[in-house]
Amino acid sequence: MTIERVAIIGLGLIGGSIGLATGEMLGEVETTGWDADSEVRRRAGERGLVGKVCDTAGEAVIDADLVILCVPVGAMEEAASGIAASLKPGVIVSDVGSSKGSVAKALARALPDATIIPAHPVAGTERSGPDAGFAELFRHRWCILTPGADAPEAAVADLSAFWEGLGAKVEIMDAEHHDLVLAVTSHIPHLIAYTIVGTASDLEDVTRGEVIKYSAGGFRDFTRIAASNPVMWRDVFLTNRDAVLEVLGRFNEDLTALQRAIRNGDGDTLHDLFERTRTIRRSIIEEGQDDARPDFGRKDH
Amino acid sequence: MTIERVAIIGLGLIGGSIGLATGEMLGEVETTGWDADSEVRRRAGERGLVGKVCDTAGEAVIDADLVILCVPVGAMEEAASGIAASLKPGVIVSDVGSSKGSVAKALARALPDATIIPAHPVAGTERSGPDAGFAELFRHRWCILTPGADAPEAAVADLSAFWEGLGAKVEIMDAEHHDLVLAVTSHIPHLIAYTIVGTASDLEDVTRGEVIKYSAGGFRDFTRIAASNPVMWRDVFLTNRDAVLEVLGRFNEDLTALQRAIRNGDGDTLHDLFERTRTIRRSIIEEGQDDARPDFGRKDH
Ligand SMILES: NC(=O)c1ccc[n+]([C@@H]2O[C@H](COP(=O)([O-])OP(=O)(O)OC[C@H]3O[C@@H](n4cnc5c(N)ncnc54)[C@H](OP(=O)(O)O)[C@@H]3O)[C@@H](O)[C@H]2O)c1
Ligand SMILES: NC(=O)c1ccc[n+]([C@@H]2O[C@H](COP(=O)([O-])OP(=O)(O)OC[C@H]3O[C@@H](n4cnc5c(N)ncnc54)[C@H](OP(=O)(O)O)[C@@H]3O)[C@@H](O)[C@H]2O)c1
Repeated sequence: MTIERVAIIGLGLIGGSIGLATGEMLGEVETTGWDADSEVRRRAGERGLVGKVCDTAGEAVIDADLVILCVPVGAMEEAASGIAASLKPGVIVSDVGSSKGSVAKALARALPDATIIPAHPVAGTERSGPDAGFAELFRHRWCILTPGADAPEAAVADLSAFWEGLGAKVEIMDAEHHDLVLAVTSHIPHLIAYTIVGTASDLEDVTRGEVIKYSAGGFRDFTRIAASNPVMWRDVFLTNRDAVLEVLGRFNEDLTALQRAIRNGDGDTLHDLFERTRTIRRSIIEEGQDDARPDFGRKDH
Repeated sequence: MTIERVAIIGLGLIGGSIGLATGEMLGEVETTGWDADSEVRRRAGERGLVGKVCDTAGEAVIDADLVILCVPVGAMEEAASGIAASLKPGVIVSDVGSSKGSVAKALARALPDATIIPAHPVAGTERSGPDAGFAELFRHRWCILTPGADAPEAAVADLSAFWEGLGAKVEIMDAEHHDLVLAVTSHIPHLIAYTIVGTASDLEDVTRGEVIKYSAGGFRDFTRIAASNPVMWRDVFLTNRDAVLEVLGRFNEDLTALQRAIRNGDGDTLHDLFERTRTIRRSIIEEGQDDARPDFGRKDH
């Protein structure tokens, strides 16, 4: 089977971007879409996020070869239940949720007989909603598929080809490992950014105006990700609890060691770490996942 | 007195940027400079960071109305001692160090009779050295002056006018308050970024290659500031110890509360914080200290 018709459930940042990217890069593939929010459906129609915005989830998926659930992780099971009765035989059901172990279980509960291949495009911005999506979002970014042991190879190949068609690079790993890797590279950075922005705004001796005024000293880099979608991130932390708590434990140990070094005036420990972390930045730039230019190359996106 | 001749000691990112900005925006002001490193002096000459690169610190400052020390905070006392014998009467001695209480003490020890007005331009990048500077660095950014109680008003006014001439906005506060504000907006964000990048690279179950590959999920935003100058940052933490440890204590409390919320599945606590931090981002953008565009407006810089 080749994928000819794609249905997108949830037309926010990620769903909208998939729709736009499909239209632009895979012109022969038809797209339909639905969102629980009628205002989102209206805006999606205006922007042309998908070929056809449908009035019900069932109508959107009825002819689809591939259904992609693009709703918050905590809404995946409900969204899957809502399409169960309308799926065509042989359809591939996938999603884009930021945590994978718990989503795989939720989808399996809601759709016990379907071919389910969970996925996670590692690409995003701090914006959300139907106005946030853009066709280039996935280009040069990784999309991780986490098929279960019994997933048909042909379906995995079809889904991989679809994401590659949107400009992404595809990697396959098991859901548990995904959740640990993403805890490090995404979930904990967000948690820490949210925390420090909260801490800064609660201090009695430093006004919020001062925090804002002098944010160019480093703080502003954290506020961007601390402005991300609250519902989405709540769901990520609730569903990837174990891996998040594990990495957080490590982070706390390392921070305590630095705290001690500062208290004891141990400059060598500080300097050694600061020297070491520089090389990671260089590797990220070499890998093309960020850019050394002052704008991080984000204007090419 | 108006400032006609400025000497810059230390020709790295900040010193070089002051030299270039003075040349471009205050064309009538003469600049001289010196750096302890002969290779830096050579590069500074080639790039024309100052009007004249001198062979000794004494030669650089001998005619200056304003001397600005642009060396790491831990080197301020040595740099000040090195010019003590060559200063002209009435000269203003200033600096750009990122922590102010300890620098004020170091300068007072080295130059007991001079007019000292410490300063800190809240602007920077993760780059350092004589190739890193650019004339626009201070434009629309704040420069904080922390004059002692006995500082002559005319000297404070002259130094303020100089920084405004480079495009900066000037604020005056006491050194202790500066150190607390900057602990929040700059020092702790850097410490946390260094820590998480270190934690990520030390995990056994996630390879460094994976961290780099999937860094677009949020981690990469931290690596930029974790690539900052190790010597500069070691010195900042050693000299602003009390304020850094105080804010770090608050941060740890807040992080522990979130950790507990995750462990207990308390979605409301998570959602409330995430909703609240969004508004801070908006204020920073409104204040012009960052930009909502995908490139953070950094290309205008
Ligand atoms: N943002 C990122 O950076 C990023 C990156 C990779 C993966 N992801 C994942 O992508 C998914 C979507 O995130 P997003 O950033 O695109 O969020 P978003 O912009 O808020 O879009 C989600 C949309 O789904 C709708 N929705 C909620 N429950 C629904 C349901 N049961 N049925 C149909 N529609 C429903 C929402 O409507 P309402 O707003 O009215 O609830 C909203 O329009 C999440 O699972 C997230 O983890 C996000
Ligand atoms: N980078 C920022 O974002 C930023 C922002 C605001 C303020 N600051 C402050 O600005 C100051 C300079 O930082 P920077 O980023 O410009 O660092 P930088 O690029 O490394 O420049 C510092 C220069 O000073 C030289 N130097 C060291 N000790 C010296 C001495 N005793 N006499 C003369 N020159 C000496 C260094 O030479 P070697 O490299 O050979 O040692 C180097 O060329 C620091 O106090 C920092 O806290 C930095």
